[in-house]
Amino acid sequence: MTNRVSADARVAEARNDLVPGPVTLMNSFTVPHGRDEEFHAMWDRTSRYFIAQPGFVSLRLHRALSPRATHRWVNVASWDSEADYRAAHSTEEFRRIVTQPGWEEFPSSPVLYEVVTSVG
Amino acid sequence: MTNRVSADARVAEARNDLVPGPVTLMNSFTVPHGRDEEFHAMWDRTSRYFIAQPGFVSLRLHRALSPRATHRWVNVASWDSEADYRAAHSTEEFRRIVTQPGWEEFPSSPVLYEVVTSVG
Repeated sequence: MTNRVSADARVAEARNDLVPGPVTLMNSFTVPHGRDEEFHAMWDRTSRYFIAQPGFVSLRLHRALSPRATHRWVNVASWDSEADYRAAHSTEEFRRIVTQPGWEEFPSSPVLYEVVTSVG
Repeated sequence: MTNRVSADARVAEARNDLVPGPVTLMNSFTVPHGRDEEFHAMWDRTSRYFIAQPGFVSLRLHRALSPRATHRWVNVASWDSEADYRAAHSTEEFRRIVTQPGWEEFPSSPVLYEVVTSVG
């Protein structure tokens, strides 16, 4: 049995104020053992929506070396601003995509960050 | 009261085989409310060791927008190979640095990843 995952659970928590500069989303996915290919195909289709949105800068999808990692897959995505991130995550299209059957099997923990130090 | 954190707890779990290509460390830190500056100063001093090691490529230190994030700070660092990462994390100098007084107040969860998809 799997729980339903609402579209709201796919959006990082907000503060009162919006960060005007660049923000980085880290979205950590729980993927059951042996389901990597299924997750990856689903994520790949879904990512096309985000890549086409205003303010999208880049993404790197990471897979853990260890099969025992709590978060087997992590997407790190940069956006021009928090407003851009939130706009992309509040459309009807977004809601439709992330509530598609299948996604409920891969819960995620989306959290927004600012880059404080950058080397190399 | 704080628990001691061993140097081993500061190193990502290994598999049997080493990944020959680039790897990405995600090191997520638990930082109590109001301790951001103290953590950042300590991390900054510690990071100098890693930046000088063979195979170090880059790092981005991230701070969560929300003060309630489970992992308030996350370092994302690229290494040329897993062997380089492990060599840098098995020296006496490494052990000395990460067992310094103060670090036990900021537990971390280091996990190694491979980049599977890259856009932008």
